[in-house]
Amino acid sequence: MSSDKQITLYYSKMSVNVHRVCMALEEAKLSYKTYPIQIAAPKPAWYLEKINPKGLIPAITYGGPDVPGDHPSPSATVITESPIIMEFIADLRPHAGLLPADPVARAKVRMFIDTVNTQLVPAFLRFLKEGASYEPVLDGVRAVQRLLPEYYENGNGTWAVGDTFTIADIAAAPFVARVRLPGKYSVGKYAAGEERLLQDALDSPEFARFKAYGVRLFERPSFKATYDEDHIVSEWRRLLA
Amino acid sequence: MSSDKQITLYYSKMSVNVHRVCMALEEAKLSYKTYPIQIAAPKPAWYLEKINPKGLIPAITYGGPDVPGDHPSPSATVITESPIIMEFIADLRPHAGLLPADPVARAKVRMFIDTVNTQLVPAFLRFLKEGASYEPVLDGVRAVQRLLPEYYENGNGTWAVGDTFTIADIAAAPFVARVRLPGKYSVGKYAAGEERLLQDALDSPEFARFKAYGVRLFERPSFKATYDEDHIVSEWRRLLA
Ligand SMILES: N[C@@H](CCC(=O)N[C@@H](CS)C(=O)NCC(=O)O)C(=O)O
Ligand SMILES: N[C@@H](CCC(=O)N[C@@H](CS)C(=O)NCC(=O)O)C(=O)O
Repeated sequence: MSSDKQITLYYSKMSVNVHRVCMALEEAKLSYKTYPIQIAAPKPAWYLEKINPKGLIPAITYGGPDVPGDHPSPSATVITESPIIMEFIADLRPHAGLLPADPVARAKVRMFIDTVNTQLVPAFLRFLKEGASYEPVLDGVRAVQRLLPEYYENGNGTWAVGDTFTIADIAAAPFVARVRLPGKYSVGKYAAGEERLLQDALDSPEFARFKAYGVRLFERPSFKATYDEDHIVSEWRRLLA
Repeated sequence: MSSDKQITLYYSKMSVNVHRVCMALEEAKLSYKTYPIQIAAPKPAWYLEKINPKGLIPAITYGGPDVPGDHPSPSATVITESPIIMEFIADLRPHAGLLPADPVARAKVRMFIDTVNTQLVPAFLRFLKEGASYEPVLDGVRAVQRLLPEYYENGNGTWAVGDTFTIADIAAAPFVARVRLPGKYSVGKYAAGEERLLQDALDSPEFARFKAYGVRLFERPSFKATYDEDHIVSEWRRLLA
């Protein structure tokens, strides 16, 4: 197993996609340092040039000398896109079990992540940040729930794909957590009352499985260690006022 | 190694994403059967219900009894999304080398595929099918070319990531091939003359590396065995008239 190599994570505590990478690093017990990048603000020129021309976080550098985050070394590898970084961490630490060994189970993990990314994430962000309707959010939750095993009915503790906690669960957790925040704090750009309709639906029997999945996710130590609800809500209030 | 298991590929000869899966199956020397699904036509109810609610191809079923494609067995696994199917095939047949073993190289393969999918593909399809400008197509080609090693200058034959042919090359090949077709056949919805501007740019020195990459891709037996240019062009003429 490799990696005494340095890992620098370009980071914001409120970022939902950075949250995934933090959880994966915790699960894999990899040490890393963070460099702060501010969301919804212009990115430094060195970041756009040397780390991510798209100006998004997360990104990591891996290997090369242990230099300050704002002076990345050309001999480090830059990796962007949270699903790719999660796969990388799973590959670096196969014994953490973040990806199953069986090809079919691996494909199920990837389809779960793709469903979260294409069906839940865009609908939720449009609701939160652009004031779109809550209905597509419920459709996204429905699509994710459809892939969950029926574990919640007997409480025997399996995860999104099989019996081990994988990057599928990590991909979901930050969004499963944030989907409850509008109902809890009335923060977001949607029309007043929409957050109540979303929350009432999520509390209804139709979504019992999704809710039970959330309860399990939020107990996971790697989640607890990386989630700061007060900070997220206060940043949302500031940015979405 | 597994897989005497059945594989059924939901298929259209003109589909660019199906083309990827065909190349991967050829490279992995896996036997499979195809079931035809018509592009730009309503999909059968059983397909939407049992295979892909999005109504897209490619999809595969893996395992279960060897049944006709329009009667998929509930005991087969359904896998959708060409990048996920390519990873699955690479996982099923590790000795085909379609994914390197090194975590950093694997991350590079995935970033290459992501760049093709997010920067080249949408721009090209909007140009071809919606008549958008050719300029974003060139930006997409630029983004892909930036990731290519400088192999063409000495002709020593490496691929997109390292010395072995991987799913990065497979992801690119069907698009690298199709990007030349407007200039060659003047087929597509763009304004007359745009295909000439695109082709002249692609033939200019700026894109020499991309062009040399294409020459190598088109020589690959798995490409030759799965590419039918006349068929694609005649289908485009019919659908984009
Ligand atoms: N597909 C990317 C999306 C990354 C993304 O959207 N990051 C957001 C934060 S969660 C960002 O960097 N936004 C920049 C900004 O708002 O300034 C991934 O999964 O990593
Ligand atoms: N993200 C999907 C995209 C699949 C896709 O767009 N498939 C096209 C054909 S290349 C399709 O099925 N179109 C349906 C239609 O046009 O009727 C993948 O990579 O597999």
